[in-house]
Amino acid sequence: MEIITYKEILSQPDIWGNIINNSDFIEKKVIEIKKECPLNSFYLVGCGTSYFLSLSGAWVLQKFLKKRAAGLTASDVYFFPESYKNSEKLDSTIFIISRSGTTTETVRVVETLKRQGHTSVYAICCRPESELVREVRHSFVIEEADEKSVVMTRSFTSMLLLIKYISGFCSGNQQLIKELSKLPILGRTIINHYNDLIEKFVNDLKISRFVFLGQGPFYGLAAESGLKIKEMSLSISEAYQTLEYRHGPMSMVGSEVLIVFLMSERSIPEEKKLLLEMKKLGAHTFVICDRADKEIKENSDFIVEIQSGISEYARLILYMPITQLLGFYQARYKGLDPDNPKNLSQVVQIN
Amino acid sequence: MEIITYKEILSQPDIWGNIINNSDFIEKKVIEIKKECPLNSFYLVGCGTSYFLSLSGAWVLQKFLKKRAAGLTASDVYFFPESYKNSEKLDSTIFIISRSGTTTETVRVVETLKRQGHTSVYAICCRPESELVREVRHSFVIEEADEKSVVMTRSFTSMLLLIKYISGFCSGNQQLIKELSKLPILGRTIINHYNDLIEKFVNDLKISRFVFLGQGPFYGLAAESGLKIKEMSLSISEAYQTLEYRHGPMSMVGSEVLIVFLMSERSIPEEKKLLLEMKKLGAHTFVICDRADKEIKENSDFIVEIQSGISEYARLILYMPITQLLGFYQARYKGLDPDNPKNLSQVVQIN
Repeated sequence: MEIITYKEILSQPDIWGNIINNSDFIEKKVIEIKKECPLNSFYLVGCGTSYFLSLSGAWVLQKFLKKRAAGLTASDVYFFPESYKNSEKLDSTIFIISRSGTTTETVRVVETLKRQGHTSVYAICCRPESELVREVRHSFVIEEADEKSVVMTRSFTSMLLLIKYISGFCSGNQQLIKELSKLPILGRTIINHYNDLIEKFVNDLKISRFVFLGQGPFYGLAAESGLKIKEMSLSISEAYQTLEYRHGPMSMVGSEVLIVFLMSERSIPEEKKLLLEMKKLGAHTFVICDRADKEIKENSDFIVEIQSGISEYARLILYMPITQLLGFYQARYKGLDPDNPKNLSQVVQIN
Repeated sequence: MEIITYKEILSQPDIWGNIINNSDFIEKKVIEIKKECPLNSFYLVGCGTSYFLSLSGAWVLQKFLKKRAAGLTASDVYFFPESYKNSEKLDSTIFIISRSGTTTETVRVVETLKRQGHTSVYAICCRPESELVREVRHSFVIEEADEKSVVMTRSFTSMLLLIKYISGFCSGNQQLIKELSKLPILGRTIINHYNDLIEKFVNDLKISRFVFLGQGPFYGLAAESGLKIKEMSLSISEAYQTLEYRHGPMSMVGSEVLIVFLMSERSIPEEKKLLLEMKKLGAHTFVICDRADKEIKENSDFIVEIQSGISEYARLILYMPITQLLGFYQARYKGLDPDNPKNLSQVVQIN
């Protein structure tokens, strides 16, 4: 196929491979930052896809660095300084995330922080010549993850992989660094194995609504997956922390809904209970997990077993090509062009 | 009408009045807690409506106490201890929120925290005899806000009002305390003025999808409003931080959508720009704000002016009866019984 978004989705394992091969540049930056910054607590700030990335990224940082971390929208930071100014000291480390480095809200946040004398502000970005990169002291730029498509796919997983590396180098966690090096081969295997199967599943299913469920670090992935469905296929989608689905939203479950479970290691027994209940209520079900038992398999209309054997924080990004392909094939099934999403542009800039 | 949910929505100003009249009991508890707890940082934990309450509540606490605060789902806290254990010290103050005090995930969290020796854990609840209340050292119980309905309405606004009082007493902010005392009269005036108008608007509009937008402390209200629509009227709804809507979700805007703007003071100029853009793209629009200018009025299909003259954090809860009535009348328009939401029960308990 000659579709840009499709090519970019499929290219992800190669881009991850590049990042891994050049990970010493990440390590060097981390060493420099550690010299000037106490790394006591973190905020990650972004818009849209980069905001959902900031949610999962915050989980990764707090897991490995054992410091408080939170994801925030750039607009909340800009309008409500109480979101990050909790004391007289400006001692939080702030990562600003943006593919283009020119999103209006993001640039405004950096300017505001600079004016306040906040020095430990760093950029995660795909464009080295951008305003964002110019405004901060240190930037992590992954140029090869940039995209021609409006819809962000490989830039999301690549910038999340970068945050995993930052966490690994900051904390000196060699086990994590070792596990990350396995991602390109695992990613390629999963894409090759499931690509055609997902296309067939979507075409046969003819579904109109999607729900993505993920707990903890998987929630940001669920929200980002829901956004891919909206952007590419103009289908209704929602995302929740898995067990939250019982607390109200499941009033609307039924056979017109596909529920996609992004299962984690620690919550899988409880997530399985919900899967069985939703199947009974008539929902279609799609499960992504590392390994599924018999009951999970019997209650899934589609099952993806990652079979990575690596820890759940290390393998997070492997879930994304699957849900991106779901959005892509749903768009094709509806006769839409994923390269030209309705109403959207590559960068949001407000006059 | 003899509908329980409707009565409970309309009773809110009276319940708020009770809380205000008995606010010295809140002040006494706060004094006791301040003796035993450093109040350095906060987590608010809940499920469903109580989770959305924890999001807005965290903004209130960090605004007035100038300390870091975050809302978390009980399931994330239970499965992923890294969500709140950032260091060896267990020195965060944790508020557990639950109408019933018997929700499975919530009770599990309290048991876990207790086992870890975490002492500064407090309950916000509507039932004095509940498991949650028994397990913690101090509880804030608002029995009069409890509900017969499955759907939470007055318990949400009342527990949020309680958090405003806790913030006011903790910080000694007399201005806030004074403003809160105006809420019952303001609430009664708004309900009386808009109740029938909302019914007529919903019946004439015949809409199928709702989007709720709110920035900062208003986002939790937007999410809770979306949940009311789902629970009562089985209609599609979404919620975003206002400016996030441009970053992807607006691919699906159109004349079948009603966008409800919960406008704040500080973001209103930017929110207005989005309102005008969405109107141009064909959306129906519904604005709630303190005072609207000519352009906002011209671009709103329905406008609610609160005209409170009080600060935005003080007036937060006044927005809720409006969106609750939207959900209620949408249910009636669709011939549904808001007292009997599909698939839901009053308390979620997992075996």
